[in-house]
Amino acid sequence: MADLPLVVSVPDPEFAEALADLDGVDAVVWDMERPHPRGPEIRYAVMPYMTSLDLADVTRGLDALDVVQLQSAGYEQFVGRLPDGVTLCNAAGVHDASTAELALTLTLSSIRDIPEFVGSQQQGRWVPLRLRSSLADRRVLVVGYGRIGRAIARRFAPFEVTLTAVASRARAGDELVPRVHGIDELPDLLPDHEVVVVIVPLTDATRGLFDASMLGRMPDGALLVNVARGPVVDTDALVAECASGRLRAALDVTDPEPLPQDHPLWTAPGVLVTPHVGGATDAMRPRAVALVRRQVEALLAGEPVDNGVAGPLSAPQS
Amino acid sequence: MADLPLVVSVPDPEFAEALADLDGVDAVVWDMERPHPRGPEIRYAVMPYMTSLDLADVTRGLDALDVVQLQSAGYEQFVGRLPDGVTLCNAAGVHDASTAELALTLTLSSIRDIPEFVGSQQQGRWVPLRLRSSLADRRVLVVGYGRIGRAIARRFAPFEVTLTAVASRARAGDELVPRVHGIDELPDLLPDHEVVVVIVPLTDATRGLFDASMLGRMPDGALLVNVARGPVVDTDALVAECASGRLRAALDVTDPEPLPQDHPLWTAPGVLVTPHVGGATDAMRPRAVALVRRQVEALLAGEPVDNGVAGPLSAPQS
Repeated sequence: MADLPLVVSVPDPEFAEALADLDGVDAVVWDMERPHPRGPEIRYAVMPYMTSLDLADVTRGLDALDVVQLQSAGYEQFVGRLPDGVTLCNAAGVHDASTAELALTLTLSSIRDIPEFVGSQQQGRWVPLRLRSSLADRRVLVVGYGRIGRAIARRFAPFEVTLTAVASRARAGDELVPRVHGIDELPDLLPDHEVVVVIVPLTDATRGLFDASMLGRMPDGALLVNVARGPVVDTDALVAECASGRLRAALDVTDPEPLPQDHPLWTAPGVLVTPHVGGATDAMRPRAVALVRRQVEALLAGEPVDNGVAGPLSAPQS
Repeated sequence: MADLPLVVSVPDPEFAEALADLDGVDAVVWDMERPHPRGPEIRYAVMPYMTSLDLADVTRGLDALDVVQLQSAGYEQFVGRLPDGVTLCNAAGVHDASTAELALTLTLSSIRDIPEFVGSQQQGRWVPLRLRSSLADRRVLVVGYGRIGRAIARRFAPFEVTLTAVASRARAGDELVPRVHGIDELPDLLPDHEVVVVIVPLTDATRGLFDASMLGRMPDGALLVNVARGPVVDTDALVAECASGRLRAALDVTDPEPLPQDHPLWTAPGVLVTPHVGGATDAMRPRAVALVRRQVEALLAGEPVDNGVAGPLSAPQS
């Protein structure tokens, strides 16, 4: 047994190259579009990014398979298609930097009026000087305080803001916030915050969390930034609040998605929309490679893999 | 003498209110548009922001005047109009947060393609997903490492970038950079940096610093962010580099300024222009009030004022 290499499949040659220095590992390049001759030897299979492949199909005949590795954080559509005895790992952490960065980009672009300036640039018009808004001195509420929520808070911290964090349950704070508030405190916290950044997972508890009543608790002129999932916010209620000019919004995710061409969100005043680009940047590759290396090293050492979300090696979900 | 209040003039009632709790201070509201009946008693006079008033005119008859306080960092146009025996103080520090924030806004907006998304939003078009650029993992060069340069570096630090700082002279580093490079090292540093943020003062040494040769040393695809002064960059050379698609730029300052409607910078690909809005935000007022309070407290205590830039109480300029 000790002489047999650990066979792993990776979706492209760049990944294989990144593993080339690991002794005892045989990395085969496989895009999963059709069966691979070495399929029956593969123990660890990395799926392509942004794939609609059916996991039950692609794993057929993979008799040695232990672990399927996703490159996305989301995994819901794969769970029911996972063969018995195989563990599914997601890519938690891989998209944190890119998504947190976009949360700051959306916030700063909105508050510092970049959409307006892009418009005046298109007309070759130098807008006369007047006092405008700053992020500095604002009270920022981060709703969802897992890995990405903390990455967002870390990036906000030097901007001379006051940070408040909300998670599913209240707990002690960290170097960024004095305490983490429970989601039940959200209604009372909203009126005091001028910037609200949403990065909760989409669950039955968070679907429609920002409905008309919750949005109504945000103060006049406040900015809602959604980098979570579209259905966390009631789109009609948000359109109404922005159409009246009372709230502003910066959204990387919408409900529905993609947003149809005639949707009122596109033209509501004070709304900035990016087309779900949070995680899809070149920050992803080195972090995905690092995760895959860690996983392969764990398998070589006979240690547990990280980020198990389903199957025998998955950790209980918190 | 001890019974006489310190008479200070401030440009609006909000300033006066912020000083109301200081014992021994008489704050009169004066916009300087015409002589004030208590002019001869004023010892400390705060100029309105963004003023074109002539200092020699407005100080006529101000026989008790010791200090004129500007609300801007720039002061060149006032120096020659300063009466003998009066000290001129600028507002160094008051605009740091707002300007540093804009440097990050410009950088993130450019790298994360906000101008493109504003354009597709205008058309109601959801752009298909593809891998895009991130700020994470980029090498960022901050050229000019005074107060605002450090405020910029502080905001970049959590974005998983590598930071390099350049100042007029090499010196030891700080908690953000291992060392501060001298400006003579700039040509050698440029080829290694994908983001270059310029925040040097405009002097004979920095005028035209980023000429065709220096811009030519930046790597393909690099981003130049100018939040300093327009003439620090050779506009024609920058337009040429951006028109060819080799470099990108995000500029809060231009040469000339305002930019005429038919100027090629407006339409050069990869160029984002904001109309010199770096410091003019609502972050300014609380910081200006804090500076004025410190200055008034110093005068009450017979201690030296801060930020003297000309006149008897000014510090030697570094």
